Amino acid sequence: MRLRNKPWAREKLDAHPQYVVLNPEQEKGQWNKTFNNDQPIHIEVGTGKGQFVTGMARQNPHINYIGVELYESVIVTALDRLIEADLPNLKLLNVDGAELMNYFEKGEVDRVYLNFSDPWPKTRHAKRRLTYKSFLSLYESLMPDGGEVHFKTDNQGLFEYSLKSFSEYGMLLTFVSLDLHNSGFEGNVMTEYEEKFSAKGQRIYRSEAKFQPRP
Amino acid sequence: MRLRNKPWAREKLDAHPQYVVLNPEQEKGQWNKTFNNDQPIHIEVGTGKGQFVTGMARQNPHINYIGVELYESVIVTALDRLIEADLPNLKLLNVDGAELMNYFEKGEVDRVYLNFSDPWPKTRHAKRRLTYKSFLSLYESLMPDGGEVHFKTDNQGLFEYSLKSFSEYGMLLTFVSLDLHNSGFEGNVMTEYEEKFSAKGQRIYRSEAKFQPRP
Repeated sequence: MRLRNKPWAREKLDAHPQYVVLNPEQEKGQWNKTFNNDQPIHIEVGTGKGQFVTGMARQNPHINYIGVELYESVIVTALDRLIEADLPNLKLLNVDGAELMNYFEKGEVDRVYLNFSDPWPKTRHAKRRLTYKSFLSLYESLMPDGGEVHFKTDNQGLFEYSLKSFSEYGMLLTFVSLDLHNSGFEGNVMTEYEEKFSAKGQRIYRSEAKFQPRP
Repeated sequence: MRLRNKPWAREKLDAHPQYVVLNPEQEKGQWNKTFNNDQPIHIEVGTGKGQFVTGMARQNPHINYIGVELYESVIVTALDRLIEADLPNLKLLNVDGAELMNYFEKGEVDRVYLNFSDPWPKTRHAKRRLTYKSFLSLYESLMPDGGEVHFKTDNQGLFEYSLKSFSEYGMLLTFVSLDLHNSGFEGNVMTEYEEKFSAKGQRIYRSEAKFQPRP
């Protein structure tokens, strides 16, 4: 998405420590304390403006959500939504998704959501795709055995690539939809991007893949 | 496809033993002798009127092909094509795909093709789909380690199901196309059905999945 420079964003994020986690290294191993309960924790990597993660947190009060987004000028919009919704089971994390191992212990995250991630269509950029094997290994290192990655995209090439990548990594495909909005799938929460592109008749692809116990 | 009754079909098939294998139980373990060479053997399960398997045999003279089709009234059209093309590397087998273990030794088949198989959309008919686990187990029993199943369909539901079924069986997805005819894939040979449906703008899905060595 196009980034607008918002020099005031950092200051606004810092002013809301109840929503935006300020020293995430210190949360490692104690997210349950931060949320003040033992609910499962689901994270969205690349949470953008936060419509999905806010909607999910509203729909599922017994799950804790963390929206991870690198760009201050984008996550600040997610913060606006969260201030308005005032949800106790949602936090925002303004860090690089590639460094999540610094912020979570093994097993602390129960599910990872990836929505409309940057497709990085050039082969030489494959390593930057959030479904590349190094990212899958990272997600696995945060979750218990059987942890799941739930993935949506409108990008055909990225979906084809990701199905192969999940399989090659040894993950089990437990859900595949090649046209989510015409599939009868219930409880779908749309991202901003998803609303815009599906309105144009673009198909939405969705998969669930599960890490397998290592032999 | 709609079946027409062709009472003369059996007689015609029997009259061409050089193309239509008449006592397939006797071929088990000696297909190389039947083809009179050591080329790899690829089979198509549900070969229909034979446009695909004939085209493949013409395109790849160093591979032996066997088109398997249960219905006499359909395979007789494949025989017409084969008589006209007179290809030494193609045989037709008028048997039930579910009984292939009676006709091939383990390792005798190098690849299985499934094209536009009946989708059997009702859940209670899932066992009849040619990508159901019992069929995958059957194909595995014919092939050496690393044997591949190459699959094409225009049926979205069957493709979604099959990707999960391959994964659940422990197969590795090595190729996925969600729009074969716009993918730059080279060497595609179309079936009769594929020509008809892609002309209507229908997407063609294609996958390759590989059996993994058992631990």
